[in-house]
Amino acid sequence: MNYTDYFENTLRDLKDEGNYRVFADLERHRGAFPKATNRGDENREVTIWCSNDYLGMGQHPDVIAAMHDTLDQVGAGAGGTRNISGTTHQHVMLEAELADLHRKEAALLFTSGYVSNWAALGTLAAKIPDCLVLSDALNHASMIEGIRHSKAERKIWRHNDLAHLEELLAAQPLSRPKLIAFESVYSMDGDIAPIAEICDLADRYNAMTYLDEVHAVGLYGPRGGGIAEREGLMDRIDVIEGTLGKAYGVIGGYIAASSALCDFVRSFASGFIFTTALPPAVAAGANASVRHLKSSNAERRAHKDKVAEVRARLDDIGIPHITNPSHIIPVMVGDPVKCKYLSDVLMADHGIYIQPINYPTVPKGTERLRITPSPVHSAEDIDNLISALETLWAKCQLARLPLAAQ
Amino acid sequence: MNYTDYFENTLRDLKDEGNYRVFADLERHRGAFPKATNRGDENREVTIWCSNDYLGMGQHPDVIAAMHDTLDQVGAGAGGTRNISGTTHQHVMLEAELADLHRKEAALLFTSGYVSNWAALGTLAAKIPDCLVLSDALNHASMIEGIRHSKAERKIWRHNDLAHLEELLAAQPLSRPKLIAFESVYSMDGDIAPIAEICDLADRYNAMTYLDEVHAVGLYGPRGGGIAEREGLMDRIDVIEGTLGKAYGVIGGYIAASSALCDFVRSFASGFIFTTALPPAVAAGANASVRHLKSSNAERRAHKDKVAEVRARLDDIGIPHITNPSHIIPVMVGDPVKCKYLSDVLMADHGIYIQPINYPTVPKGTERLRITPSPVHSAEDIDNLISALETLWAKCQLARLPLAAQ
Ligand SMILES: Cc1ncc(COP(=O)(O)O)c(C=O)c1O
Ligand SMILES: Cc1ncc(COP(=O)(O)O)c(C=O)c1O
Repeated sequence: MNYTDYFENTLRDLKDEGNYRVFADLERHRGAFPKATNRGDENREVTIWCSNDYLGMGQHPDVIAAMHDTLDQVGAGAGGTRNISGTTHQHVMLEAELADLHRKEAALLFTSGYVSNWAALGTLAAKIPDCLVLSDALNHASMIEGIRHSKAERKIWRHNDLAHLEELLAAQPLSRPKLIAFESVYSMDGDIAPIAEICDLADRYNAMTYLDEVHAVGLYGPRGGGIAEREGLMDRIDVIEGTLGKAYGVIGGYIAASSALCDFVRSFASGFIFTTALPPAVAAGANASVRHLKSSNAERRAHKDKVAEVRARLDDIGIPHITNPSHIIPVMVGDPVKCKYLSDVLMADHGIYIQPINYPTVPKGTERLRITPSPVHSAEDIDNLISALETLWAKCQLARLPLAAQ
Repeated sequence: MNYTDYFENTLRDLKDEGNYRVFADLERHRGAFPKATNRGDENREVTIWCSNDYLGMGQHPDVIAAMHDTLDQVGAGAGGTRNISGTTHQHVMLEAELADLHRKEAALLFTSGYVSNWAALGTLAAKIPDCLVLSDALNHASMIEGIRHSKAERKIWRHNDLAHLEELLAAQPLSRPKLIAFESVYSMDGDIAPIAEICDLADRYNAMTYLDEVHAVGLYGPRGGGIAEREGLMDRIDVIEGTLGKAYGVIGGYIAASSALCDFVRSFASGFIFTTALPPAVAAGANASVRHLKSSNAERRAHKDKVAEVRARLDDIGIPHITNPSHIIPVMVGDPVKCKYLSDVLMADHGIYIQPINYPTVPKGTERLRITPSPVHSAEDIDNLISALETLWAKCQLARLPLAAQ
């Protein structure tokens, strides 16, 4: 076989479908986020409207200062895996902070949220004898890969469907080990799981609960502990998983759980053991971010207000978006080529950067523009966004909501 | 089942075997590496002798400066996946630098070397129709997991055994797609693969070659391109994989290959797509390190000298270590409890930190102290190491080489 021909032909198919991805080459400006220069497009000045640095913490002075200080004190990399010289005091302190955030005995740090899901689920489901994994149908790729990696039996419950989950649980012997894996805020639709009811089922059927709070930590709860904190449910969840790369503005992932469980994953997870630890400066920056958002609600309040404002303004001009109780505003397009076209025109004519969200991030036919307002978007940024979308919707004769439905 | 009891019992078994891992809690001192404070042990001052920051680049002024500058210019995190607002100019420049380092058309950056192996091998072997993977028996966990993830058929060839590899290749139809996966420097024994001969076999049997140079990049070759560069073989390898977390002193992983292959992995690899990109400051620091080691041979020369000196001094006192052509000095102990004991006494009595390497990092029965001399170890550091080992070997009545064999 000619390998290169095969790669090129497959990529051509992807282009024909409209699913080939072109990355914007951005240069952010510290202190001026969400502004950036698009280096791939004639150095155009753009406003980013699709970042997962939801609160702008990647620009926060405390975060930047902690990273500078740690760089100066200890240098760049960790220089080893966690076991072989790569555990630094910054890792130890961050794990303690994260355990406290979620009121758990312990926390365990990974190089990313993806790796934390893959490694923790992969290890728990593989090692717990005869474990059955009950996985929400819309779980993130990293959870799916972890479960698949474990080779444990897996049953998928219809998204957020408690009756279906109970049906699957009830069909099993009570004594069989079970792990219910789900998310709090689903990142592409922005809907939120019925956590309390899932915990009730877990209690009734003796299942462990594993909750991905990647799109909620920092953003919800009085200390940023996520939806489970907001609803007073953290103690009912066995494993809370989170990221340090979205609302906390840096990079890294973690689980928070009992000491025994964290120690177990620490001892057996290939994806934890066999990889260089995060740089100490990264751990210190993330720690500063977590600590700041534990005591400050200003960012969360401003975030909520901006999201509400953008939603209301979209309603004013009849642009359809998924109604949900979170901070994510999906404007549905339903076609990959159209979705990319809208994104291209927003960039070219309006200096607005909203990446098209196409397959495989969302199912085919549900392509969308996913808008993420943040506290650092100004009133003028919002005006520009709304007028650009209005122009575009008129120009492209895209569907609007009937005025009565607004 | 009681989940916590299960975790605790399993951990107790690990402790009974001597394979339970205790992480040293270190605080490095920039500018004074390999010195560090062991925060977990009464703030003892220690000299690190087991770091994979092989050249001390994690302390290099160019690397630190690049990270400071980038933090100040663009902030902390990338704020998104590579596709959704997370590609910054620092990523683009680093990928260009890495492609040039290996004289390839393109390179693709991942959050770690682990993820690069897992995602690239997982994607190539899964997607290339009917691909057979030929995997060296001592390949790293990340490669094994990637191959396993692909669900492709896999055959394991005896470590570095060309005859066995050829036997397996010859048994297949010439037209069947094949991928030979191997490492250049094997990290625990320090031996080096016969790369040219493997490429000959790949040519003869129409196989692709995938080479992990994680323990060689930055260290070998006139520009730090690894063993394949040193031997003039880079153009014969289809995929060169490397890390930015060891000799380059920061964090991250990558592949360098044809544009079509990199674009293919970029477009299909879950572990590349669904995760927050590396912070721009990390990419900038790694880039500074790669660039420095492209033009400077001083670190490589000093490294080689220090390794030779430590080896000679070990020979002088008859302490057995694996002979190999690389920079890794494995002092064999062969028992997990003894290995941990030696490491503990080195730390407690001599302020020397060498992590015991036990299962699962190495096979049971091959436990060892893995010593990694670096250009930043002083003559005094070496004296201290040698006299500590001499004392310990006498005290513990451990085997020495007969003087004649030295
Ligand atoms: C639900 C969910 N879980 C996990 C992840 C992975 O987190 P990270 O970006 O830190 O790898 C993501 C996004 O990337 C996500 O959307
Ligand atoms: C041979 C080999 N490949 C890959 C890796 C993973 O690289 P990283 O530490 O960047 O994840 C390692 C070590 O960690 C390794 O020893």
